[in-house]
Amino acid sequence: MGVVVQNCPRANSDAVAKITEFGVATVHESQGRSGLLAPYMRPIYSGAHVAGTAVTVSLPPGDNWMIHVAAEQCREGDIMVVAPTSPCSDGYFGDLLATVLMARGVLALVIDAGVRDVGELTKMGFPVWSRYICAQGTVKETLGSVNVPIVCAGQSVKPGDIIVADDDGVVVVRRQELATVVAESTQREAKEADARRRYANGELGLDVNNMRPRLTERGLVYKDSSAAD
Amino acid sequence: MGVVVQNCPRANSDAVAKITEFGVATVHESQGRSGLLAPYMRPIYSGAHVAGTAVTVSLPPGDNWMIHVAAEQCREGDIMVVAPTSPCSDGYFGDLLATVLMARGVLALVIDAGVRDVGELTKMGFPVWSRYICAQGTVKETLGSVNVPIVCAGQSVKPGDIIVADDDGVVVVRRQELATVVAESTQREAKEADARRRYANGELGLDVNNMRPRLTERGLVYKDSSAAD
Amino acid sequence: MGVVVQNCPRANSDAVAKITEFGVATVHESQGRSGLLAPYMRPIYSGAHVAGTAVTVSLPPGDNWMIHVAAEQCREGDIMVVAPTSPCSDGYFGDLLATVLMARGVLALVIDAGVRDVGELTKMGFPVWSRYICAQGTVKETLGSVNVPIVCAGQSVKPGDIIVADDDGVVVVRRQELATVVAESTQREAKEADARRRYANGELGLDVNNMRPRLTERGLVYKDSSAAD
Amino acid sequence: MGVVVQNCPRANSDAVAKITEFGVATVHESQGRSGLLAPYMRPIYSGAHVAGTAVTVSLPPGDNWMIHVAAEQCREGDIMVVAPTSPCSDGYFGDLLATVLMARGVLALVIDAGVRDVGELTKMGFPVWSRYICAQGTVKETLGSVNVPIVCAGQSVKPGDIIVADDDGVVVVRRQELATVVAESTQREAKEADARRRYANGELGLDVNNMRPRLTERGLVYKDSSAAD
Amino acid sequence: MGVVVQNCPRANSDAVAKITEFGVATVHESQGRSGLLAPYMRPIYSGAHVAGTAVTVSLPPGDNWMIHVAAEQCREGDIMVVAPTSPCSDGYFGDLLATVLMARGVLALVIDAGVRDVGELTKMGFPVWSRYICAQGTVKETLGSVNVPIVCAGQSVKPGDIIVADDDGVVVVRRQELATVVAESTQREAKEADARRRYANGELGLDVNNMRPRLTERGLVYKDSSAAD
Amino acid sequence: MGVVVQNCPRANSDAVAKITEFGVATVHESQGRSGLLAPYMRPIYSGAHVAGTAVTVSLPPGDNWMIHVAAEQCREGDIMVVAPTSPCSDGYFGDLLATVLMARGVLALVIDAGVRDVGELTKMGFPVWSRYICAQGTVKETLGSVNVPIVCAGQSVKPGDIIVADDDGVVVVRRQELATVVAESTQREAKEADARRRYANGELGLDVNNMRPRLTERGLVYKDSSAAD
Repeated sequence: MGVVVQNCPRANSDAVAKITEFGVATVHESQGRSGLLAPYMRPIYSGAHVAGTAVTVSLPPGDNWMIHVAAEQCREGDIMVVAPTSPCSDGYFGDLLATVLMARGVLALVIDAGVRDVGELTKMGFPVWSRYICAQGTVKETLGSVNVPIVCAGQSVKPGDIIVADDDGVVVVRRQELATVVAESTQREAKEADARRRYANGELGLDVNNMRPRLTERGLVYKDSSAAD
Repeated sequence: MGVVVQNCPRANSDAVAKITEFGVATVHESQGRSGLLAPYMRPIYSGAHVAGTAVTVSLPPGDNWMIHVAAEQCREGDIMVVAPTSPCSDGYFGDLLATVLMARGVLALVIDAGVRDVGELTKMGFPVWSRYICAQGTVKETLGSVNVPIVCAGQSVKPGDIIVADDDGVVVVRRQELATVVAESTQREAKEADARRRYANGELGLDVNNMRPRLTERGLVYKDSSAAD
Repeated sequence: MGVVVQNCPRANSDAVAKITEFGVATVHESQGRSGLLAPYMRPIYSGAHVAGTAVTVSLPPGDNWMIHVAAEQCREGDIMVVAPTSPCSDGYFGDLLATVLMARGVLALVIDAGVRDVGELTKMGFPVWSRYICAQGTVKETLGSVNVPIVCAGQSVKPGDIIVADDDGVVVVRRQELATVVAESTQREAKEADARRRYANGELGLDVNNMRPRLTERGLVYKDSSAAD
Repeated sequence: MGVVVQNCPRANSDAVAKITEFGVATVHESQGRSGLLAPYMRPIYSGAHVAGTAVTVSLPPGDNWMIHVAAEQCREGDIMVVAPTSPCSDGYFGDLLATVLMARGVLALVIDAGVRDVGELTKMGFPVWSRYICAQGTVKETLGSVNVPIVCAGQSVKPGDIIVADDDGVVVVRRQELATVVAESTQREAKEADARRRYANGELGLDVNNMRPRLTERGLVYKDSSAAD
Repeated sequence: MGVVVQNCPRANSDAVAKITEFGVATVHESQGRSGLLAPYMRPIYSGAHVAGTAVTVSLPPGDNWMIHVAAEQCREGDIMVVAPTSPCSDGYFGDLLATVLMARGVLALVIDAGVRDVGELTKMGFPVWSRYICAQGTVKETLGSVNVPIVCAGQSVKPGDIIVADDDGVVVVRRQELATVVAESTQREAKEADARRRYANGELGLDVNNMRPRLTERGLVYKDSSAAD
Repeated sequence: MGVVVQNCPRANSDAVAKITEFGVATVHESQGRSGLLAPYMRPIYSGAHVAGTAVTVSLPPGDNWMIHVAAEQCREGDIMVVAPTSPCSDGYFGDLLATVLMARGVLALVIDAGVRDVGELTKMGFPVWSRYICAQGTVKETLGSVNVPIVCAGQSVKPGDIIVADDDGVVVVRRQELATVVAESTQREAKEADARRRYANGELGLDVNNMRPRLTERGLVYKDSSAAD
């Protein structure tokens, strides 16, 4: 504890721009159904969709001192990712800290704890994905660390990883895998567009995906309602 | 497991049209305060209000294969009701499956698990009541059953039962009791309209419902603040 | 149980008008980070912001009789605060009771239990902060008490206390401390306005609040990413 | 509500005696992995293992009147199964009601709510599986029903169903399926005894169950730690 | 915050000795079904049963400094009651602090947070009722208060109140009401002993408490299983 | 997914033997208050205390196939650590798999999911720390991975890390830090033994740790009960 790692590498900005075109569900599928943060991480308002490089923060319960320290490490396009060392619902972050981050071009906050001033944050257009909304204040007494590996909402997040977040939640992509995930997501979207067209015409997943033989093989039985007990 | 019951009877469409005029709270009261699903079942967007015949789906945790199978069993006016055999927050359903169901005239999904692509579902106007919003994907490996009796969010639901859902949650009505519940709801609404008028004029429930004698009988004591310790 | 205390003193209306200008987070900070109800207390719709005198209600699980009794004790500018004697998700309150309270000038309901008819309540513009949204009905069989000290969502609330509620949640202010809290909140807002201006210009909390010497004293270490293991 | 069904059929006592030889996990597997109550149902003390016919009770939150009514419907070898109409942690049952039930030969209580006097119940040797341990008292004001179908801890339970409970939890068996489940459990135990012997000798499930070919077919990859990144 | 109130009055030791003869459920009933702490407060080992005067502690999440301060305020026969200002599962207390308290004659700890070294505490015979068992350590940086009114696990506790705890949980008794509650508990036990004798002889609560006429009046219907649909 | 890493390095057995002398709380403190798994991880029986090298397993919800695969990778002194890719309460593990693991000298199971046959496991003396006790069975259809980095109960665990578990819960120690943590724990125990002796003699933490000056500096106020409002 008590370490700030500086000048972490950022993700390639073109690749980040591309991955922002895809939703969280697509990105998650494209990397083998991995990287999704726990579903209790919810946006404070609907419709936000961001991607950026993670600046990670590990801090104690009820103490937001390290968020001030971490702000200095943030650059344009970053997303701050915060996890307390033990579960805490306190409101670590409000409109003042959002003003600091917006002035540095930070895109969003992801925090496995509480946030406050959500009315104001919504007006400012600063998106937050959090576990709690809670006005409870915090102290500034105990050190934590910035840009060290953390576990946030059940997922390991490393500084420099890419965060993608939308109304479905938050997913983390390893920096080394970003290009692969973008390519895979592009393919997936194309395939889904085709399936969507066929589904809209009334075709079934059973046929579009040729599921019937395997269902039969597994022993699925069809019977009429009149024959059911 | 592994059974699909076909051609289940549907509810009378006129009666369904009538019950759609009533909210979930009214329907629940009209059938003796029964049938309400657990309050963790929340709509993915506000303002939807639907009623239709239940097509039930029982499936394993983390496996949405049976939703594809169940889609084929759905008709215009149906509502798909899904329950996993053990608790699971995974996103069993997204915009592609919604496209399939909308093409068949299905009105809504009720699922005691997770759903994803909620931004897209909202734009499509396909209402979902779910326990979780979660992008986590599922596999297609293990059979379940369609149109068998299930327990969904704490209530027994049988194929052919009527589901009513609005911003308050989800209630199930037995098909045999639909006409009675519609009649009872109609009466109840009339009575409530009268009470609402009197309440708006400043009358109290104590007087409108003649509660004072029974409160006295039970021993309710009034005292002045100055006399209270 | 079974006591109704009448004519409890109300908070000074000018002071209440002033405290309504401040958000819950500010008020909570201004009284030493105390008085915040548990974060599970959420508004049924966004954007409401109220302050008023608490009329307290203690009642049994699944029984809303005392809300009718309490309505008679409410005056213009009051906020009804309800806590069951054991946890209960039932919908104690709906549009009819809201009609009663609005006719008396009551500003809002705060309830550590469930509420229903939330679509209708939203249209009526009657704000509610509750733990659950749930259509489950209640009976009218067992007495409780009105205007006695209660614990609501983890905070002690006494009749005559002031309740402030907004999108961040609900805070309680002791009546005797209202003037002090208003004064403190006014000062705090002024100070925050200044900080906000500096933050918007790109200054950091580290400098605005002179945090660097104390961080050094505590032993915070900065190292470069290339040097980190 | 407000119905007591009398003289429900009981399960065959020989078959019940046989099923008591099997644990909950075995019985649950033997009926196709169905019928298990939610894992929050825990025994108040370790080591109890019972099977008997369910006498079902549906009652309101915070009101245990119907347990007194249900006691009269119980016979030797029965197990009382209680579910409130909405979630409630109150202590519906204590040592006095246990005395009543023991005098009638009732084997156990299964309750999706709270129980109290657990120290005394343990001394009496009356086993209870409950969701909560809680001393909060209840009233006797509102009717419920006895021996109607209920949902208890996520499972549908009908009067006359068989309940099996041990340290793993509680499972329900339909009366019509009891003989089949006993037969299936007997076979399963024999098969498991054989597997247990082989496992104790150091054989692996991979070989005992011939899993290797299918793992290969699915694409499982083995690599050495030195080759892993 | 930051206040230590000294020399709070203690409860009468004879009365405390008497109330220790009664279980939590009895005491809770004897004071009108009030004062019970939330059922998530569980003993770390079975069989402990204590009563004593509350020394209250309010402290921040993740910071146990005030427990050291509070220890000095404790006397023989006291019970320390601790509540964090926001929810926290950290282990505030272990075998060293227990050694301090035992040396002063403190009977038990009641804490709405976490405790650790539970194996050691069990060997020492120092009983704890807590919300969590958790080894996570805490800091000593921020003040709290000792012997101020707190809310612990949903109940208001004042310094000098009496705490009674057993396997059923924890109940608080106001000091002014102690004599009354002891008298009431004595009567209640006598009455229960009589009922227990009759129940053991096979009588029913329906008859012992003369419930049948009122059940009939409420409309309870008995029907035979063969007549039920 | 679908990778098995073989021949992962094990921790030094002498060092493991030494760390087993220390409790989880001590180890957690000795590595800077880090590494503790979430407190919902509880032992199925009291009194077990183990330390060993982690063999990690990542697997799908409701599917325990990979536990059979992982068993083959286990050696004497290992501890199996299992985490599902999304939350699941199913019983992944019972007495048969325990027989397999015991035959290989595996010391314990740590699983962020459910376990069954807990009565049998207790008799066998095979300790398990789990999130749930649940008899619900699982399938064998979908691959996962063995000996890859996982997140288990909120902590990152890598193959070869050391797991220490006792009645307080579970802590993970990085293999590279094992010697340091053992040394630190040894020092800490010595220091605690001294403090314990002084505490047993009636000294206070305020004096043993010289806390009084800093409390005064922070502004702690003492006042007499008679002076308090």
